[in-house]
Amino acid sequence: MKNAAECDTELTLAIDAMGGDAGPEPVVGGVALAVAKGLKAKFLFYGDEAQLRPLIANAKGLDESSIQHADNVVAMTDKPSHVIRRGRDTSMWGAMTAVKEGKAQAVVSCGNTGALMALSRTQLRMIEGIDRPAVTALWPTPRGRSVVLDVGANVEADENQLVQFAIMGEAFYRAVAGVAKPTVGLLNVGAEDLKGHELIRTAARVLREADPDMAFMGFVEGDDISKGTVDVVVTDGFTGNIALKSAEGAARLVGGWVREALRGTINAKFGALFMAPGLRKLKDRIDPSSNNGGVFLGVNGIVVKSHGGADARGVASAVNMAARLAGENFRDEVAETVKAVRRRRASIAEAVETEQEIKAAAV
Amino acid sequence: MKNAAECDTELTLAIDAMGGDAGPEPVVGGVALAVAKGLKAKFLFYGDEAQLRPLIANAKGLDESSIQHADNVVAMTDKPSHVIRRGRDTSMWGAMTAVKEGKAQAVVSCGNTGALMALSRTQLRMIEGIDRPAVTALWPTPRGRSVVLDVGANVEADENQLVQFAIMGEAFYRAVAGVAKPTVGLLNVGAEDLKGHELIRTAARVLREADPDMAFMGFVEGDDISKGTVDVVVTDGFTGNIALKSAEGAARLVGGWVREALRGTINAKFGALFMAPGLRKLKDRIDPSSNNGGVFLGVNGIVVKSHGGADARGVASAVNMAARLAGENFRDEVAETVKAVRRRRASIAEAVETEQEIKAAAV
Repeated sequence: MKNAAECDTELTLAIDAMGGDAGPEPVVGGVALAVAKGLKAKFLFYGDEAQLRPLIANAKGLDESSIQHADNVVAMTDKPSHVIRRGRDTSMWGAMTAVKEGKAQAVVSCGNTGALMALSRTQLRMIEGIDRPAVTALWPTPRGRSVVLDVGANVEADENQLVQFAIMGEAFYRAVAGVAKPTVGLLNVGAEDLKGHELIRTAARVLREADPDMAFMGFVEGDDISKGTVDVVVTDGFTGNIALKSAEGAARLVGGWVREALRGTINAKFGALFMAPGLRKLKDRIDPSSNNGGVFLGVNGIVVKSHGGADARGVASAVNMAARLAGENFRDEVAETVKAVRRRRASIAEAVETEQEIKAAAV
Repeated sequence: MKNAAECDTELTLAIDAMGGDAGPEPVVGGVALAVAKGLKAKFLFYGDEAQLRPLIANAKGLDESSIQHADNVVAMTDKPSHVIRRGRDTSMWGAMTAVKEGKAQAVVSCGNTGALMALSRTQLRMIEGIDRPAVTALWPTPRGRSVVLDVGANVEADENQLVQFAIMGEAFYRAVAGVAKPTVGLLNVGAEDLKGHELIRTAARVLREADPDMAFMGFVEGDDISKGTVDVVVTDGFTGNIALKSAEGAARLVGGWVREALRGTINAKFGALFMAPGLRKLKDRIDPSSNNGGVFLGVNGIVVKSHGGADARGVASAVNMAARLAGENFRDEVAETVKAVRRRRASIAEAVETEQEIKAAAV
């Protein structure tokens, strides 16, 4: 699977145009928006031709795109197992197959997360040495953006999977942000006497001892995410999902208070006029669509999941993320690092055993 | 332990004046602030007499308070086990003993969380039927405030403990907010195919079937906390701590953006003047000190933990929380509900078994 490298003169993205909450309109609109803002790519739109044709004809800059008709759509309520068995005629299946067959370098879908995950795993297969996929989320910080993973692919993760997530997150951040040596932290609680589960402590020890090239900074706490203390925050999908949604909820609450403060009095309304440019920037920053686009790491291909309810701006963010990753080949890097860490870990364990044997013999 | 009821003509609070990051000054200042705002109570200040005497003499409204000298202070880095064995001469130990001996109805401390928890458990003992304590956090919502628990007492919680947390949180919310039937939800992730760990599902089933008096609303997600979807959000201490701190971090980030938007241009500065009243309210809302004061539920007494770095306003919030709870006797209610749920749960399990036996016999 080196499609990105082979085809990098021409970027092609497969778009599942149907699975979102609002149908194909914001999807086509989002792709057109990304093109209007400078993205150069060809698009394969998978979905209902009758609906897609007028949308694409009316959009600007999509002349080179093509429609791949699909009779069916994966519903948000479909079980992943059902989609794997019977979803061959859906737009999601079609778009995923395009990546599998090398017709496109990445796929973007606003559809059912579980089904997209299941199709990614079964069609693209896992990277060697990675047990389970992880979903990324970009998180705004005062320094730019951090990445948090896993935010929902798995409810549980053992110490080996946390180590794999850290390696994948580091490679992902390097590819996305162009930072040579991203800093990595494991999400934990702070109270001295209860520093996390045993398995998080083990994962920290492995990362410290068996991945000497990683800038591993140890444990970080919930408030460190928004501070940007590290570039890559690693946790299990249960905790990551709740951290992300709790923070989004809090940001939205504060955003509501700001609006209220601005609307409160006649004076406030008058005052708000003077501040308009600063406020627009603030609105853009709070707007979650600028961070839309979760990447499924761990599978052999670029799969970007857009929020089901994303508007055109949100879809454009997801499409840009897919385009940025399509040229990067971080999967080989991940496979190699995972292998090296496993080897070093085994030799560390062996050294410890030998040491213990020597001590035991000396007694 | 019915001190609160016996002494409710006169409220006395034990204050560990020494353990916070900034020493006794913000503690005494916070108590004085609470008194200035209308709190009627006597205070027993535990700590270094030489430091406390001038602070209390200079504060208004503390004439009836007394100083209980303690030679020593629990440091933030002290291990809880060390404090239990050797902490007899500390201000924290003294203040806790005051509650144990009925000299005060509640204790407030800004000190070492683990040590305060260990002293609470060993000196006050657990409520019958409660395995482990849980720490509460008040969380602002558009409707007022919700309570989230556990936010850090235990890194893990099994299904029985989650049920106990739900029962304690419900009784706590009723006592604090005066709501007859608070709504309760279990924190979970949303994706259809991975609805949480098995143990959260079991806890939900038990609450639904064995506590028919509770307004149990099922699962809630991270963003539901700030929406105020339910009054009481139940989770384990690991997830709760990370959700709380992630949200605080996000709120602080957005608050920083707001300040930046207001300072951005000369126009913005001029505009900000017009909006001042709305902005002051906004600042108060974002200020975390108004929600300061985590209560240790599950022990036989009222123990309120203030943030170690709390300023006078934060300490005043914690003191007010202690005063509000001191008159309430929700511990008996908790013990009775836990017992009833356990009984009903056993009989439900028995009914299921009988049903299965009948079916098996019929085959």
